[in-house]
Amino acid sequence: MSIPSKVTDYMSQHETDFVRRLQEAVGIPSVSGDPASRPHVMEMAEWIKNELTTLGATVTLKDLGKQTLEGKEIQLPPAILASVGSDASKPTVLIYAHYDVQPAAKEDGWDTDPFKLTYDKDRDCYHGRGSTDDKGPLVGWINVLDAHVNTGTKLPVNIKFCLEGMEESGSVGLDKLIVEESQPGKFLNGVACVCISDNYWLNTSTPCLTYGLRGISCFELTISGPKWDLHSGVFGGTVYEPMTDLIALMSKLVTSQGKILVPGVYKSVPPVTEDEKKLYDALHYSIDDIDTAAGANIALSDDKVTVLMGRMREPSLSLHGIEGAFSGPGTKTVIPPSVTGKFSIRLVPNQTTKEIEELVEAYVTAEFEKLNSKSTMKIEHSESGEPWYTDPNHWNFKAAERATLAVYDKKPDYTREGGSIPIALSFSDALHVSVVLLPMGRGDDGAHSEKEKIDRSNYLKGTQLLGTYLWEVAKEVSKDVK
Amino acid sequence: MSIPSKVTDYMSQHETDFVRRLQEAVGIPSVSGDPASRPHVMEMAEWIKNELTTLGATVTLKDLGKQTLEGKEIQLPPAILASVGSDASKPTVLIYAHYDVQPAAKEDGWDTDPFKLTYDKDRDCYHGRGSTDDKGPLVGWINVLDAHVNTGTKLPVNIKFCLEGMEESGSVGLDKLIVEESQPGKFLNGVACVCISDNYWLNTSTPCLTYGLRGISCFELTISGPKWDLHSGVFGGTVYEPMTDLIALMSKLVTSQGKILVPGVYKSVPPVTEDEKKLYDALHYSIDDIDTAAGANIALSDDKVTVLMGRMREPSLSLHGIEGAFSGPGTKTVIPPSVTGKFSIRLVPNQTTKEIEELVEAYVTAEFEKLNSKSTMKIEHSESGEPWYTDPNHWNFKAAERATLAVYDKKPDYTREGGSIPIALSFSDALHVSVVLLPMGRGDDGAHSEKEKIDRSNYLKGTQLLGTYLWEVAKEVSKDVK
Repeated sequence: MSIPSKVTDYMSQHETDFVRRLQEAVGIPSVSGDPASRPHVMEMAEWIKNELTTLGATVTLKDLGKQTLEGKEIQLPPAILASVGSDASKPTVLIYAHYDVQPAAKEDGWDTDPFKLTYDKDRDCYHGRGSTDDKGPLVGWINVLDAHVNTGTKLPVNIKFCLEGMEESGSVGLDKLIVEESQPGKFLNGVACVCISDNYWLNTSTPCLTYGLRGISCFELTISGPKWDLHSGVFGGTVYEPMTDLIALMSKLVTSQGKILVPGVYKSVPPVTEDEKKLYDALHYSIDDIDTAAGANIALSDDKVTVLMGRMREPSLSLHGIEGAFSGPGTKTVIPPSVTGKFSIRLVPNQTTKEIEELVEAYVTAEFEKLNSKSTMKIEHSESGEPWYTDPNHWNFKAAERATLAVYDKKPDYTREGGSIPIALSFSDALHVSVVLLPMGRGDDGAHSEKEKIDRSNYLKGTQLLGTYLWEVAKEVSKDVK
Repeated sequence: MSIPSKVTDYMSQHETDFVRRLQEAVGIPSVSGDPASRPHVMEMAEWIKNELTTLGATVTLKDLGKQTLEGKEIQLPPAILASVGSDASKPTVLIYAHYDVQPAAKEDGWDTDPFKLTYDKDRDCYHGRGSTDDKGPLVGWINVLDAHVNTGTKLPVNIKFCLEGMEESGSVGLDKLIVEESQPGKFLNGVACVCISDNYWLNTSTPCLTYGLRGISCFELTISGPKWDLHSGVFGGTVYEPMTDLIALMSKLVTSQGKILVPGVYKSVPPVTEDEKKLYDALHYSIDDIDTAAGANIALSDDKVTVLMGRMREPSLSLHGIEGAFSGPGTKTVIPPSVTGKFSIRLVPNQTTKEIEELVEAYVTAEFEKLNSKSTMKIEHSESGEPWYTDPNHWNFKAAERATLAVYDKKPDYTREGGSIPIALSFSDALHVSVVLLPMGRGDDGAHSEKEKIDRSNYLKGTQLLGTYLWEVAKEVSKDVK
């Protein structure tokens, strides 16, 4: 049985309420990376608990303990474990989303208050931190519950929610929880499939389903020399300067054209076949899409397949910045004593974080030795996550595809994503069930940027999509059983 | 006639008062680079005016107009023009110092409140921002006046003070004032010599006189690409990244060993002669001095002469940092849209800022073209100052040497300084008289750092030194006239 029209009608009639709900959620600045905002992350957890409880869910805020952030020990945001229904005759769908957001400040260049969901009439979209990443989808699921409860419609599946408040800050504590809760008799055990809505369409018009993600290894490369800031007039030309060595090493990591220079880094990447190339060629994508999303004509290639492979099936290395050096406006002519370069590598199958971290460490160490400097070097790995790849022919994907067809009247693109959502792999590994990534937003949503938005239609149709998916899962599973 | 003993006795008897005076001065956080601190810079000017007026000087606070800082138009701190005496039979000494300081905050790593002069018993020194750069010397001159006035001793010279409040922020407005006030009949016209106390001994035990300074050219190299922050997962491997290009260009400026890679940059530097090498060899200096001052064993060479030449007679290039990239602790995996690398070159005779700026611009532009990137590049010059060199055999230096012998019982080293004090050249050019740099502090004072200090003995003996210098100038000039 498909999603009942009374449910979708309710959704159409309550768009204003759904927007208001998202407005409330965006209004809570639940920035997980800033200790000062931690109370707002907690507030966000309470807000969700209240919404879900009101709609009949059984909700537990799972204490994940403490973390040390900027020298202070503070409470981690809880994982929200919630369930709706426990009918043994129905499949159970596990839904993941996160309720924390990236930092945002008006000074970063926002045209609007980042924590006030603001409608943009010209583009028919809503601006705000978290609008698309990931409060839009999270609130979408709440809307789905709302529409069922308030039309007196029984859900066709049982739902388990696993919602976290640390996704933007390394998902501290969650992996352990997933492993524990996947044991027999525990909360996550026995789910039939997983649905994550935390990525984006490839372009701005074609829905997609995602069956692969790149992994990530983050590095911090520190060069130290003097004990304190030195005056560059007094000491310039007389001492080894850490910045010179750091810049030299960082310049040896990647070329302008994006080729990673760490020897051996491409060894585990399988060569591309002509058949695989055809998959990329079939996707609804053009170089214009990337230039539009980046706001400038800066694509590495004019060939769509090359660019898509660069995002989906090749590793990449980005230099993010330097800690400890002068970073303000104007001039400060000091020699900084210790500087830390930040960079990360996105990994693809069959690379592993361990392999890549060892290669980078060996290479950087050897290159530093060549510099013959009296400075000292240290390289550390911070956040990391393995790449993930799953079977796109599983019934979980079929359900998502049919939901997409029903709502958008379009067959979705099947994509692999350049970003990293390590939790997809965690669920795969712990539960041994299919994980589908069913995005709500578009490729130009600007997650993490000062332009973050969600289109009104993506939010509202996205809510319908998530609801319809549940009904299609039920249908698929009943087929499966027959 | 030498300095009367009643004056030096008064100085010995009022050490506590002199320290209290410096304490007051350091207590005013006159940071010129921070618009929020501008009222304190103004407060500092008023404090000096009050001190000088009380001691009988005629003081004018010279309005230098407004500047635009961080987008706001704010009032510049005044130049303080003050005179003591107008006896046509006496030479007039022009004294320069600055009353603004570098930024400082406890969080930068200060062990003490940077704006509270704090005595360190173990090292017999005072910590605090401005203690040595340049409030110690400035207050030293006030102490000299104090000791003469309160012992009823007529000064052997007329004094003109030119004190500025923007030295740490490019001396905005001062050059123009100096040129204007050097015209016939104006305030600075007719001075016999200039004394600047705004640098340091080469080591920690031998006083010095400085007859040369390096110039400086500051550069801001900007690479721009996307219009906003991009997610490195979604865009990594698909677009040209500005950071990659900036790091590549910055890595081509200087080697670990300090050799500048900009072609032609050494062309105007005269080759060193064996005689010149002997000058450096004679200086009281060792590799230990530099390692002690830097807090680590990081000297570029084990050869004293090579290191001294690196500081005094060779250009150097330092990389200071990057604006626009991630610079905080932890991880932020974005591709920044526009990044600006900051670096500076210290210049020596016969290099000119114009020549060096043209060479750097041409080189960086050519190297950027080689990268074949779709990003855009812009290079700008910010602050700059020409190198300066004067005759160390002038009577102005003889007077300073004899004062040093009288106070320290040591012949001073004759040094050239690695830092840049463009004002020395401004006075030379405008007034055509000898400029001596007569430092008060030691080579390990850590000006601009979070370790800034002045030794108690340097402050107190330094006060005697400045007073004695005035009497020796009078003696030299009377010899000169005979």
